[in-house]
Amino acid sequence: MPLFSAVTVEQAKSLLKTHLQGFEHKIESVDLFSAYNRVLAEDIFSPEDIPGFNRSTVDGFALKAGDTFGASEAMPALLTLVGEIAMGEKTNIKLSTGEAAKIPTGGMLPEGSDAVVMLEYAQLMDDTTLCVERPVTPGENVVAIGEDMKRGDIVLSRGHTLRPQDLGALAALGIREVKAVKPPVICVISTGNEVKPPGESIKPGEVRDINTYSICGQVIRWGGVPMPLGIVKDDFQKLYDAIKLALEKSDAVVLSGGSSVGTRDLTVKVIENLGKPGVLAHGLPVKPGKPTVVAVVDGKPVIGLPGHPVSAMVIFEIIVRPMISMMLGRDEDFGTTRILARMSRNVPSAAGRQDYIRVKLERRGEELWAVPVLGKSGLISGMVESCGLAHIPSQKQGVAEGELVEVELY
Amino acid sequence: MPLFSAVTVEQAKSLLKTHLQGFEHKIESVDLFSAYNRVLAEDIFSPEDIPGFNRSTVDGFALKAGDTFGASEAMPALLTLVGEIAMGEKTNIKLSTGEAAKIPTGGMLPEGSDAVVMLEYAQLMDDTTLCVERPVTPGENVVAIGEDMKRGDIVLSRGHTLRPQDLGALAALGIREVKAVKPPVICVISTGNEVKPPGESIKPGEVRDINTYSICGQVIRWGGVPMPLGIVKDDFQKLYDAIKLALEKSDAVVLSGGSSVGTRDLTVKVIENLGKPGVLAHGLPVKPGKPTVVAVVDGKPVIGLPGHPVSAMVIFEIIVRPMISMMLGRDEDFGTTRILARMSRNVPSAAGRQDYIRVKLERRGEELWAVPVLGKSGLISGMVESCGLAHIPSQKQGVAEGELVEVELY
Repeated sequence: MPLFSAVTVEQAKSLLKTHLQGFEHKIESVDLFSAYNRVLAEDIFSPEDIPGFNRSTVDGFALKAGDTFGASEAMPALLTLVGEIAMGEKTNIKLSTGEAAKIPTGGMLPEGSDAVVMLEYAQLMDDTTLCVERPVTPGENVVAIGEDMKRGDIVLSRGHTLRPQDLGALAALGIREVKAVKPPVICVISTGNEVKPPGESIKPGEVRDINTYSICGQVIRWGGVPMPLGIVKDDFQKLYDAIKLALEKSDAVVLSGGSSVGTRDLTVKVIENLGKPGVLAHGLPVKPGKPTVVAVVDGKPVIGLPGHPVSAMVIFEIIVRPMISMMLGRDEDFGTTRILARMSRNVPSAAGRQDYIRVKLERRGEELWAVPVLGKSGLISGMVESCGLAHIPSQKQGVAEGELVEVELY
Repeated sequence: MPLFSAVTVEQAKSLLKTHLQGFEHKIESVDLFSAYNRVLAEDIFSPEDIPGFNRSTVDGFALKAGDTFGASEAMPALLTLVGEIAMGEKTNIKLSTGEAAKIPTGGMLPEGSDAVVMLEYAQLMDDTTLCVERPVTPGENVVAIGEDMKRGDIVLSRGHTLRPQDLGALAALGIREVKAVKPPVICVISTGNEVKPPGESIKPGEVRDINTYSICGQVIRWGGVPMPLGIVKDDFQKLYDAIKLALEKSDAVVLSGGSSVGTRDLTVKVIENLGKPGVLAHGLPVKPGKPTVVAVVDGKPVIGLPGHPVSAMVIFEIIVRPMISMMLGRDEDFGTTRILARMSRNVPSAAGRQDYIRVKLERRGEELWAVPVLGKSGLISGMVESCGLAHIPSQKQGVAEGELVEVELY
């Protein structure tokens, strides 16, 4: 069996990326109503100018801006009202110098007009005489043809995750269906002789399976489809069969458990026997979460997370989350929110190791402070109390009280 | 018809809250695998101590901490190895002074032991003689009974939205099903004679229905279930019938359109005829988005948003988003991320009016800057380009370049 030296998190991610280069996104057509949060598999170009006509943004009077230059309350411009624009209809009105037409918000500007004066700044003296009390500039209160989106412009790019406003933009373009990447199916397996499903009673020495549930939640959170496969004993053949089945059923496999030296080696041995290239990295210089296995078997990632629930969640965020993004064809860090906050106390860290500290955030005046949630890495309650992870990069030996740190929010 | 004076956003929300006081949350049982992002309808107490036994967090040797006090590489403590703890099993080993037992990560500490020394700091001299090279403190490398969660402790409160770590905590407690609030069904209606569905070709003067799609996306984003009812013409009877049907089918109705004075009044008139208490607020001192209608009909909210796509989205965020949270029984501002950033240029605002400016964020050194996305409020492309809304409170007359503003991220 080959030996694997610990690599950095960046190296592990880049190894994974290299081996996923050939990964083929499955693509499906998705109706706009189902497209929220889906990743585009195509560039979207505007098939036409939006708006398709010069549109008023206010209730008022369409006119030639030049006719109002110099107008004031004391010296209003007097225009002739020649008609009214109906909403949603093309008008036959053509304005000449000195003429105006009533127009509703969203109405189409008549030929000859280049601006709209708001109702509030114009008064009708009689049926046809309009008194404008302030000048308007050309284009004022008007959205010009193609000002929102121009024909041929790229509106949304492949790899973009659709937000509500993007759905609106697609609707504006008359697009009712888009090509989206199919979310990857991720098999989730817990391992360990001592691990029992939450529904069973447990004896002293046994623990309930936490990781299946928190990891399935993380898979959903980041846009994958979880397929929980239950608990597998620390046994070569059982683990081999389980991962083999998982690889057949899904696009990637995430295991957790096997934190003790013997079972960690078991996971590595099983993966090495399943296919090529096998294990890419074994062990990451990260706290919490050292015992991590990053592998690819016949084009599909197999990630072995630590057994400690908190370590498993942290390593998921730094390895599996970006992996899901790669499989979706979007930015690695999509959806993460990183903010700067001041650390509320000294936190030591070893050089060459990345530390992730669970923190709560407190606002003190104009500043945000990160307050570490104390507790051992096995405690799920510490994750429940915290709202993000403060990151101490590997080149730093800890952070001092008051120092700025980057916090990734859950 | 009564007259409604414009109220502030806070007044409108508080009026809505008062009238939703009696709103009954529909509750359903949800399996843990389907519980991600659901809102708890019950408090969760720990039914037992977690862990249920003193558990080792490392591979090492269980011992009495007192036996190692003063130990060093030069002066190691010599202990007698009396056995090995098997993973997942209760052990019969009882340690006396001067004794140690091998223990795996996650193993149950034997009676008499109070700490674990890591493998790295202990050496076996022969089959039974263990040489410990550094002192351990009582409790070191051990998670004590109930240290994670204590029996009877409240672990998660009613109104809490379940994150991956919360699912893990529930699994740890042996809880496989929770009571969750059923997401409110929100009917979405677009109004306007000029509005056409995205699938139809449009004539000059007509526009495609954008709001149905962006609003349905926002409803999903904030935990509701959208029910789009299509486009309704500016006609009393048609609008009356549509809202009546919507009220029968859903928990709340969100309309958009009717920005011009005439159609705005139509919406108000229809709501006043549908039931009590009717319109609570008409017009909000907000830019963009003044023409807003906030109403309750027979216990169900009816919200009229502006027709401009951007205004509709902004008013959704400040009125409908907190409304959905109220209906889910969770914190009004749940899920919003607000950060402080420096405004990149002077932005004027009228006193007494709240302004929401679409911004992009740029990191400059250690500071975050908010760069306004220019463009008229009708342009959906401005929403596509921006990543959040900077808020200018009503008591301020604009913000100066470099001033800190609160930005709510999409």
